[in-house]
Formats: sequence, structure tokens, C-alpha cells
Amino acid sequence: MNDHEFLETAIEQARIGRAEGGVPVGAALVADGRVLAVGRNRRVQMGSTIRHGETDALERAGRLTAEVYRRATMFTTLSPCDMCTGAILLYGIPRVVIGDDTTFRGPEELLAARGVEVVHLRSAECRELMEGFMAEFPTLWNEDIGV
Amino acid sequence: MNDHEFLETAIEQARIGRAEGGVPVGAALVADGRVLAVGRNRRVQMGSTIRHGETDALERAGRLTAEVYRRATMFTTLSPCDMCTGAILLYGIPRVVIGDDTTFRGPEELLAARGVEVVHLRSAECRELMEGFMAEFPTLWNEDIGV
Repeated sequence: MNDHEFLETAIEQARIGRAEGGVPVGAALVADGRVLAVGRNRRVQMGSTIRHGETDALERAGRLTAEVYRRATMFTTLSPCDMCTGAILLYGIPRVVIGDDTTFRGPEELLAARGVEVVHLRSAECRELMEGFMAEFPTLWNEDIGV
Repeated sequence: MNDHEFLETAIEQARIGRAEGGVPVGAALVADGRVLAVGRNRRVQMGSTIRHGETDALERAGRLTAEVYRRATMFTTLSPCDMCTGAILLYGIPRVVIGDDTTFRGPEELLAARGVEVVHLRSAECRELMEGFMAEFPTLWNEDIGV
């Protein structure tokens, strides 16, 4: 699978989240050409403040050795927030593929400064999922980003 | 309660974690003079990769409005890692009180650069809990910090 196909796996999670009434951000942790885990924002679904797309994928991947993380790529439908950026840095994940960073943009410069490769796929569907959600649930979205 | 007394609440969590065979890091989220939630590292106990002391406290505190976070202090027995630093920044928590930053030191300069007040209490017990744990379980400790 190529980057666009792996991103599609993350987008599917975002779509599920949207259908659940949640924040439509999805992620997939990939290594050695296969998906180790997918994740999606669970603020609404689980009442969770720490399960964003990326951290949910890391949690569902379970305990891994550092060597696996060092070969991994985090695919995410939306530019990682401060927390998810930190999680990526903690585990030394060297590559992040982002669907959209126009509706929200996290500290991508921090990822780059710490040596993480940041790839933008500029997905119209990722952007449109967020635009629709932000218009319908602005208060929920603000809560999710601490505003 | 003063800072030392709130830190004691976090240390109690670290002690519980140590007794459970886990990573002995504890935290307490405090606002308006009361503990909103305590937390501890749950890597071993829950097989969790995202529940560090600070993030566990945030998760257990549940969904809060931004105004509450803006009045909060995060007490932690150990200097926050990249992920927990990011979680503190995401929610705009303006003050962090740290028990020990000699056995591990996260990106405290990032907290300071983003306007977070960082206070060190230099607790011998926090340091000794980590020293004992790191000597007994070096592989587990490395896993927890992505090494």
C-alpha cells in the first residue's frame, strides 16, 4: 500500500467517528508495510480527554519495543496537536503523514526540528470532514483543542 | 494545602504504582485549591502506552472546560516527558510542579517557552522511587520513554 492508501485507513476511522457524533479525526500506525493499529478521537464516545486519533492508535497498538516505533509512520487525517506531537516524539516515530493542516495546524515545526519527516497529502476529504464538523459542533471542537 | 502537600498526593500514586509493579510516577491535577484527579503511570497495570502519570490524571479528571484548565496546576513526581508536556500545552495548564528531574528530564524548556510556570520541589522521595525502579526494571523504564 502507498501513503494515500494508508491514509485512507485513517480516513475510514475519521468517518466512523463522525457517524458516532465524535470528533472526526482518524489515524493509523504503520510499520513494515502493515497497519499495526488504527485509532480515532474518542472524546465523545469514551468521554476521553487523551484519546485523539494518534494516541488512540498508539494505545490500541499496545506495548511495542523502541525498534518497531523507529520503523513506523503515523498517518493522521489532521495535523497533530501538541499532545499527539509529543506522543510521536516520545516514541521516536520518524515519519508523519498528514491529511489536512488547513482546518487545524499543530506544532509541525517541532516535529521537523526533532528530525521527524512530515508529509502533507492535502486530502480534500480530510478537510471537508473537519469543516463540516467544526461548523456543526464548534464548542465540542474548541474543547478538544483546549480553547 | 500547599505545593508540598499536593505533591504528596502525587507521590502516593507513585508509591501505589511501585507496589503494583508499575512505573512509579504519579500526578495530581489541582484547581481552585482542590484535587480534580490523581493519576499514575499504567503501562504495566493496563498495558497502556499513553497513560503516564499526567495523562492518566487528565483522563480521570474527565472532560473539563478550558477555563478550569487555565486555573489548574499539574503536580507530577517526575519531569514530564514529551507526550505529557504536549498534553499540558494542549490544555493550556499554566503551572507545573515537579518532584524530581534528576533521574529523567523532559523538555521543560518547551513548557517555559510556551509560558508555563515550572516549579521544582526537588523531592528526595520522588528521586529515590525512580532510582530504585530504574535499577530493578531498566528495560521497562526504557520502554516507557521510547528507548
